[in-house]
Amino acid sequence: MNTVLKGSRKEVKISIERPFVMIGEKINPTGHKKLAAALSSGNLDYVRDLANRQLSWGADVLDINVGVPGLDEVALVRQVVELVSSLTDAPLCLDSANPAVLEAGLALAPGKPLVNSVSGEEKRLEAVLPLVSARGAAVIGLTMDDNGIPQTAEERVAIAEKIVNRAAQLGIPAEDIIIDPLVLTVGSDSKAGLVTLHTIELVRKALGVNINLGASNVSFGLPDRPVINQAFLTLAIQAGATCAITDPSKLGSTIRATDLLLGKDDYSARYIKYFRQAEKLRAAESAPTPIA
Amino acid sequence: MNTVLKGSRKEVKISIERPFVMIGEKINPTGHKKLAAALSSGNLDYVRDLANRQLSWGADVLDINVGVPGLDEVALVRQVVELVSSLTDAPLCLDSANPAVLEAGLALAPGKPLVNSVSGEEKRLEAVLPLVSARGAAVIGLTMDDNGIPQTAEERVAIAEKIVNRAAQLGIPAEDIIIDPLVLTVGSDSKAGLVTLHTIELVRKALGVNINLGASNVSFGLPDRPVINQAFLTLAIQAGATCAITDPSKLGSTIRATDLLLGKDDYSARYIKYFRQAEKLRAAESAPTPIA
Repeated sequence: MNTVLKGSRKEVKISIERPFVMIGEKINPTGHKKLAAALSSGNLDYVRDLANRQLSWGADVLDINVGVPGLDEVALVRQVVELVSSLTDAPLCLDSANPAVLEAGLALAPGKPLVNSVSGEEKRLEAVLPLVSARGAAVIGLTMDDNGIPQTAEERVAIAEKIVNRAAQLGIPAEDIIIDPLVLTVGSDSKAGLVTLHTIELVRKALGVNINLGASNVSFGLPDRPVINQAFLTLAIQAGATCAITDPSKLGSTIRATDLLLGKDDYSARYIKYFRQAEKLRAAESAPTPIA
Repeated sequence: MNTVLKGSRKEVKISIERPFVMIGEKINPTGHKKLAAALSSGNLDYVRDLANRQLSWGADVLDINVGVPGLDEVALVRQVVELVSSLTDAPLCLDSANPAVLEAGLALAPGKPLVNSVSGEEKRLEAVLPLVSARGAAVIGLTMDDNGIPQTAEERVAIAEKIVNRAAQLGIPAEDIIIDPLVLTVGSDSKAGLVTLHTIELVRKALGVNINLGASNVSFGLPDRPVINQAFLTLAIQAGATCAITDPSKLGSTIRATDLLLGKDDYSARYIKYFRQAEKLRAAESAPTPIA
């Protein structure tokens, strides 16, 4: 099953046969003081940098979240969507808990964007799915509901099915739904990773839809988080995940290596290309600033 | 199925329910000029260092290979086995293409050692299995035969079955056989990783035996080999591999992280312990040498 996203000129297809898709996560002020400050002062240069950097590092899609308490997020999302669309042809992912912000972003985003997100919670289903349907967008569906995040894979799959069914009622096809199986930290519950991996397998069998992985929650509270995040990403791709909201500069190599090992990169072309690009970027990013 | 290895005082159990077992690979002069030179000059201090360092970094078992062209390997293996047994209670893995060297090592190795290796080749089966049987040792079986390394998982499984059957004829139980599915480089054949992963799954289903992974062949010829090796190790552990001949200082974190994610590390205890030990070792190994 292909999920097709579109930017102003670029198309990105997400599917198990294709390379894993990276949705750049960095334009998100949550826990990111520098960005929150920039957005608060109306200074979009930093947003421009974050967008450009992620694209250099191979992001296929850019997530846009402007959630800073106290700011006019509706106005802000319009500015940021306009800015980022001017920088890239790539599809955008509109990320907000506020349906009014999603609506404003959807009105300006080019092509066929992705909405982050809906869940099994009634209010989200009622507020978000109509916006997605009206725009003909795609949407990420989180496998949680009004009771929270279920502890078992079977319960998470049931929520996935509920989301797909409710979306179908509004004419949103399964190809336009990307399920996020959620992952809790193995630091608190040693079975947390397994539950997510099992959810991915069950959702793919039952629904065949594409699967998104959230950030690096799996390693929260543990030391040397990158090594856990990398291993988890590999396991999840093996289980059937097809895209992730992530930092392409941190996890791009692991993603390209895993695609290669799973037979999705003839002649290692994509892996080698990524390696060369990463080498150049690392050299450029660590070059000392010339003394004026 | 448990494979039990024994050193002079320590027992190591290999099984899918237990933590992944690391067999330290460094005492091997192949491609290691410094070690070849030390062995040639009869200087075993470097061997001592390699043994101790691998044990510090968490090796459960130590592989011992003294194959340097022109040297008296039989005499050398006796010296090295004696030295390493004096340094550690951990089990040893005797690694040689020469049955006389295996025999000499087996005569001196304490407990219940591992033999590296037998294969489906007639000469290996006839020369090595009787030594393993006589000593009550365990043995690694490579899924290659007189026709070379098969291209398909099914053919590799057939060789695994042949090895297990021939071993049974000599009274060697399946628990004492660890199958190595071999891995060719994805740099030459983009399906190479998948063939190995599929072989692991089929061998576990058909025979239930433990599975060993060789070094880092999968990434040969490609850039940034560590990221490919780490991802492959994770995929292989997920598929059913239970031990690897490896460098514990390079792949230990990935191994402990993968065990954690696959639910085999309650309270993340082993992962955190490994992290702390690794931190100490890194600090010690990068401390500048004091000026005398």
